[in-house]
Amino acid sequence: MQSRYFTLTDYPTGLPRRELFALETQELPELGPNEVRIRNHWLSVDPYMRGRMSGIRTYVTPFELGKPMEGGAIGEVIESTDAKVKVGDRVSHMGGWRDIAQLPAQGVTVLPDHDVPEQAYLGILGMPGMTAWTGLNRIAECKPGDNVLVSAASGAVGSLAVQLAKAKGCHVIGIAGAAHKLAWLESVGVEPVTYKDRTAGELSDAIQLASPEGIDVYFENVGGICLEAALSQLNEGARIAVCGMIDSYNAEKPAPGPSNLSQLVVRKAKMQGFIVADHWSNYGYFLNEVAPQVAAGKFDYQETVKEGLESTPEAFLALFEGGNTGKMLVKLEG
Amino acid sequence: MQSRYFTLTDYPTGLPRRELFALETQELPELGPNEVRIRNHWLSVDPYMRGRMSGIRTYVTPFELGKPMEGGAIGEVIESTDAKVKVGDRVSHMGGWRDIAQLPAQGVTVLPDHDVPEQAYLGILGMPGMTAWTGLNRIAECKPGDNVLVSAASGAVGSLAVQLAKAKGCHVIGIAGAAHKLAWLESVGVEPVTYKDRTAGELSDAIQLASPEGIDVYFENVGGICLEAALSQLNEGARIAVCGMIDSYNAEKPAPGPSNLSQLVVRKAKMQGFIVADHWSNYGYFLNEVAPQVAAGKFDYQETVKEGLESTPEAFLALFEGGNTGKMLVKLEG
Repeated sequence: MQSRYFTLTDYPTGLPRRELFALETQELPELGPNEVRIRNHWLSVDPYMRGRMSGIRTYVTPFELGKPMEGGAIGEVIESTDAKVKVGDRVSHMGGWRDIAQLPAQGVTVLPDHDVPEQAYLGILGMPGMTAWTGLNRIAECKPGDNVLVSAASGAVGSLAVQLAKAKGCHVIGIAGAAHKLAWLESVGVEPVTYKDRTAGELSDAIQLASPEGIDVYFENVGGICLEAALSQLNEGARIAVCGMIDSYNAEKPAPGPSNLSQLVVRKAKMQGFIVADHWSNYGYFLNEVAPQVAAGKFDYQETVKEGLESTPEAFLALFEGGNTGKMLVKLEG
Repeated sequence: MQSRYFTLTDYPTGLPRRELFALETQELPELGPNEVRIRNHWLSVDPYMRGRMSGIRTYVTPFELGKPMEGGAIGEVIESTDAKVKVGDRVSHMGGWRDIAQLPAQGVTVLPDHDVPEQAYLGILGMPGMTAWTGLNRIAECKPGDNVLVSAASGAVGSLAVQLAKAKGCHVIGIAGAAHKLAWLESVGVEPVTYKDRTAGELSDAIQLASPEGIDVYFENVGGICLEAALSQLNEGARIAVCGMIDSYNAEKPAPGPSNLSQLVVRKAKMQGFIVADHWSNYGYFLNEVAPQVAAGKFDYQETVKEGLESTPEAFLALFEGGNTGKMLVKLEG
């Protein structure tokens, strides 16, 4: 049986060009002991993958040039030499960017039995959901009644962060760009604020209008003017969970940071970066809390779906151009 | 009896001009009930006072134009209508920028009985010492064996932070400018690193050379290139205590922040501002721990002393030009 997969042919500078991604084919070997073969149904593309394309070790190891790329995926087991993972099981795993994955069984997780679509485990019940939940609760110590600001608020992580904060009884303000994203925020009870065509000062004023009592928690996905505007509106003892700074991921030369970082002193505020992988031991706890609410339809989780393995690079690149509402997914045929 | 005191005549932009400070004289009224009259021996000038000259409420209320300015001071009680504070008591209080202070007795603290010079209660055993101790222990959660970086490391707060960290068994790196400051750092067992004529990148390289195993704790007093260089050298889980950012206090227009703030995510680091006043309930605990060590000569605390009430504005302004090693003090005659 053959597997078709993407490789990275060179480490990009700036926004990666489409040509850097090459679609390859290989004949899969027989399964070794305790291995599984999986037909992928859904592939995940995520901004953090840009960090694996730098050739420099950050918090994840770089993609190896010419080797199959990796990423979250959901599929069905079609062959197994492992006692615990059986043919027909639906599983989540990291063998994405390909149609057929062949992996050690210990690297795959059989999906739990909640009444949700299987791709939810790449979004609201997967890494993005767990990231939103961890940042909000564990890093920013969000409490009912807090004024919570989220940047990239209609993105995969942001769209869950705003809804988790709403469910907690917070006043939530979301920053986004396109009109349909702002409309979606409003539809889930979030105060929408656009960053488009605004300076940091103008964005700060707009946040103040949306949250006259200031900001207690800021869930940061963007950096740039969003961070500068948020710093200006912090309340005393505010907590900033830094999930990412997508604004800078493709920067060819370093862009200056906010000029008002001393607000951290003035407001006695905390700003803390985190990587969800470090908190994965809480995943079961997260799932117990959030999965029943998802099954009950309590969250409006958005998906943007591209069709076919070939569209994976385009799906990934669209993340940096505001091309997704909610979780960006690739749906495979078959 | 007369009191001579400084007032601020206007709120400055940028570095305050000397002419903004006016020396005035007033005839003091009779003492009311529970009041004390104090002959000041020592006045404190501190960078945070710049924040009180902005006319905008930050974490301290602005100085009122034309009214006596305020600041830490040590003096001797020469008249009292209060049962607890007696004539002859040596006290610390906030009625500085003047020779004779007249205050409610509840606003003064009788100095404890440690064998230290009285002005130590404006420095190592006062607000700067308490600031260093709080930032290091309570905010940055410094542990024995940590690699600790301190900016403005020979300043009033920095010079205590480096020595407290040394006493804790840490490897300590200090950033300073002038040669005699670097020499002093070396004399107390701290790795000296100069920021002079260096870019952020060059400073980062110099820090790496002084601390090849990275930085676990950064005690931040400066901002600017010091922060950018420090961010590049953080270890995983590093903690930054932001005490101040003196680099920006006199800036007439906002200077950009560091371009590498996303290191907070990559290194899962925490950056937290604090104001020592919020932690004053620990002052007794701090004094019990540190005062006996000061009395035993375990710390080399530096002072820069200007003579006479008239020199107070010059002493204050010199803080922004590297004019002090350790605590800047004004010594009054009589």
